[in-house]
Parts: sequence; structure tokens; C-alpha cells
Amino acid sequence: MSGFSHVSRLVPGEEGVFHGDIHPEWTIGGKPNGGYLLAMLTRAALTVVPHEHVVAASAHFLHSPDPGPVEVTAEVLRVGRSASQVRTRLVQGGLPCIESIAMVGTLDPSAKPFWAGGMPTPSARAQAECYRLDTRGASGFTVAIMGQVDLRIDPDDLGFGVGQPRGLGELRGWLELPGEDFDPVSLLYAVDAFPPATFDVQLSGWVPTLELTAYVRALPAPGPVEILHKARLIDDNRVDESCYVWDSTGRLVAQSTQLAGIRL
Amino acid sequence: MSGFSHVSRLVPGEEGVFHGDIHPEWTIGGKPNGGYLLAMLTRAALTVVPHEHVVAASAHFLHSPDPGPVEVTAEVLRVGRSASQVRTRLVQGGLPCIESIAMVGTLDPSAKPFWAGGMPTPSARAQAECYRLDTRGASGFTVAIMGQVDLRIDPDDLGFGVGQPRGLGELRGWLELPGEDFDPVSLLYAVDAFPPATFDVQLSGWVPTLELTAYVRALPAPGPVEILHKARLIDDNRVDESCYVWDSTGRLVAQSTQLAGIRL
Repeated sequence: MSGFSHVSRLVPGEEGVFHGDIHPEWTIGGKPNGGYLLAMLTRAALTVVPHEHVVAASAHFLHSPDPGPVEVTAEVLRVGRSASQVRTRLVQGGLPCIESIAMVGTLDPSAKPFWAGGMPTPSARAQAECYRLDTRGASGFTVAIMGQVDLRIDPDDLGFGVGQPRGLGELRGWLELPGEDFDPVSLLYAVDAFPPATFDVQLSGWVPTLELTAYVRALPAPGPVEILHKARLIDDNRVDESCYVWDSTGRLVAQSTQLAGIRL
Repeated sequence: MSGFSHVSRLVPGEEGVFHGDIHPEWTIGGKPNGGYLLAMLTRAALTVVPHEHVVAASAHFLHSPDPGPVEVTAEVLRVGRSASQVRTRLVQGGLPCIESIAMVGTLDPSAKPFWAGGMPTPSARAQAECYRLDTRGASGFTVAIMGQVDLRIDPDDLGFGVGQPRGLGELRGWLELPGEDFDPVSLLYAVDAFPPATFDVQLSGWVPTLELTAYVRALPAPGPVEILHKARLIDDNRVDESCYVWDSTGRLVAQSTQLAGIRL
């Protein structure tokens, strides 16, 4: 197994270029996970500004890269007192693959949620009661990445695995990164780690991410994270999905929205 | 009154620079509305690619510009068969104010929603039963923009106006642009037009947008749009808000998520 920190690391090169290596096992049907790539881009952003934590990242996916070497560039847009913004790009073989803007700030370890009345609440069964997904994907792809992480789905939400989606468009469960705890950067992977929530509406082929926006709301406590991944509207061959990530204390630590392509 | 098309227009200048003029009446406490500015940026994106409709736009707000002249630049990131991506920037007096990435594609006028099971449904009272906001803002700001648009709030959601927020963090109502129908670009204003939904939690001063991501899901039918603006989590002096926009036929035509700063 190749841990998240290892497969998402960047090596500084010349003239502000960082070198990364997309791991062949962090893939779905041979293509890397989008959240994993966004984490890689964000590592570059964090090196060029004085602030410490990614707070918001918005990425547009232009071209899906293959496993192997990539170059990441980071351009500072603004350095502020409490936050900075950075533009990053991931390129493979000269082809721009992902463009992102990150807001980097400070997540106060002593902050407490003030009001959470508009958020869903964690509702998955205990981690041990959930089913761990393996590398045989429900849609016919080999999901190699499931051999690298511990991703579990609530049995109530697993109908898609036997061809019986419920029509709710919701997947709940847990995620753990073997050998490491979550931090703000790996939460960017967590918000995109689950199978498409549309599988609980209708099974389909690849659901490629077009745009992914993630907010990191708090520093996560050690331990696994609970996840709710929710499809909302399928229209004109596109779907939007919302993802919510709670740490082991039940605090909402990250969330995302994405627009993806889908053919049904 | 100065209509949306007028105040958001751009004039092409030299070397790919577009000139815009932030209208002093499209402001809240003297500062322009963020969705209005995102629409202005997106107009530049639409001029440089072959596709017609903005489908997704992600913006980070670096510095709040003042009314007056601005320059907008647009750089093509990718031209694809079905969609293109463009990076845009709004600058005032040499200072970068907003950075955005837009996905421009085609919204199929014949598409029908396939599944909307994860979306809220319109629930505001009829437009005529809602209260039109005027330029006297609840938080002490002059909200000049309310003299330019017809924005109405469901009376059930108006407790904040008399110092009695309900704690639900939800504002429902209607928006109309006098003299013009909505199109994909003006929907980018619609997703950010309502007062902060946090007013229904606790009144505060300015709630500055840090990041705004909008998806346009369908071409809107003529007429007013219904809006639900919803706060979700307030933590560490930041809040995220979701906005949903339905056209006059009840179809979800645009949605957004934003992260904003808040002091309570």
C-alpha cells in the first residue's frame, strides 16, 4: 500500500515548478481520483504563502491525467493578513489537466461551531457495521484505490451493489487512511472519495468531475471520518453532488459541491 | 434605474482587456454585489470561446472593488468539443479583486430534468404575498441595489427585519430584473442577490464573500425566479451558504455555494 502523504507529495523543481507522481493504485478504472489530484495541487499552494491551512479550493478539470509524472505550478494571487489566495495548475506532458484557486488561511484549533442548523447530521451506522468496498467496482471498473484506503458504506445504502438502487441518491459511511490521520489537505481527498452518489439512483459508467469546490471548516480530530455523499439534481447530462465529512468527534470538518458529467 | 445588462456590460479594449464600470447603485453599503461582479467577469469569458452558456463559475474574492472603472481579462484554458474553460480576473487601479474560472458549454433547451430527488423544492409564498425589500438595510447599511431590482422575501422569513431571527437560517422569496428576463449570466447575480441567510440566525455587519461557486443547470423561462437562500454552518468566523434558484415554471435553473466571513 502507498499512503496518501506519499502518493500526493511534491518535489520542488526549478522556477516554481513542483514535480508529482500520480500513483497507479490511486485510480478508478485507471484514472486518478479527482480529490487526490486537488490535494496534490493544494500542496503546491501551501508552499508559496505564509498561511498554513487550505480553507477553500475550487478546481476545474480540463483533462484527466494518467498515472505517472506531473508538473504543478503555483502563482500567488494575494497575500493578506488572515488569508492568501493561490492559483495552481497541474500539467502532464504539456497538457493542462486541472486549474484551481485555493484560499489558504488559519483554522483556529480553539474555535467551536457557533451554529450548524443548516447542515445534515451524521447518520451512518457504526464503522464496524459498514461494508468495506474492495477493488471490484459496481460499474465494471477496477477501483484500485479501494485497495489503498479503508472506505466503508452503510449496508442500507448498498443496494446499488446488487442492481437495486433506492432512488435516494445518498451514500453514507466511513473513510480511513491506513497509517495516517486526516489533515486539511487529505480532507480534499475525503470529499471526493466515495463512489458516485448517483449509483443509488441508477448505475452508470464513469461520472467525470467537471468542477469541484471544497471547504475545510475545522482541523480534524484523529481517527476515521464519517461521510455523507449526496446527489441532488440530474439534468442535461450533468449532476451535482454534495459531500459532508465529519471527524471522529462528529464535527463537520469539510464539505464539497461538485458538478459532474453523467450519461443515463 | 440601471438595468442588469447595462451595468454588467464590458467594452473590449486592447490586448484582450475588457473595460467595465461598476455601477454605484448596484451596491450594499457602497460595495458592489459579488454575484453582479461574477457576471461581469463571466461576460469576458464568453467572448473568448466558441461555446455559448456559462455552466459553472468558481470565484475567489481577493479585494472588494469600489464603484467605478474596472478591467477584466480572460485567458482560455481549454477549448473542448462540448465545453471550454476560461480563467478571468477583475482588476481595479492595478489591484486584483476577483479571480474566477468558468466552464462554458451549451445548455440544451430541449433537456428535461432526469431526477431531482436530492434538491429542495420551491416553498415561498406567491410573489405578490412577499415583501419587497427597499434600500434601508436591516443591518444599518444602505442597500442601494434594492432600488435596482425587485427582490421579495416571504413574510414568514422576515423576522430579522424586526430583530427576531428564527434561527432557521433560511430566506425564501422572489427576484425580478426590471425590464429584462434572466439568462445564464444574470443567474450568476441571482444566486448571490439575497441578504445573508445568517440574518435569520443573528443580525451582523457585512458578510463578505470569500469564495462563490455557481452552477447554471438550465436555460430559465421568462419571468421572475424563486429563490431559497440557506445558511448551513457557522464555525471559526466563517459561514457557508447554499442558494437555489427556480424559474417561473418551477425548474431548478441555478444553484450556488459560498463561503463568507462573519463576526458574531
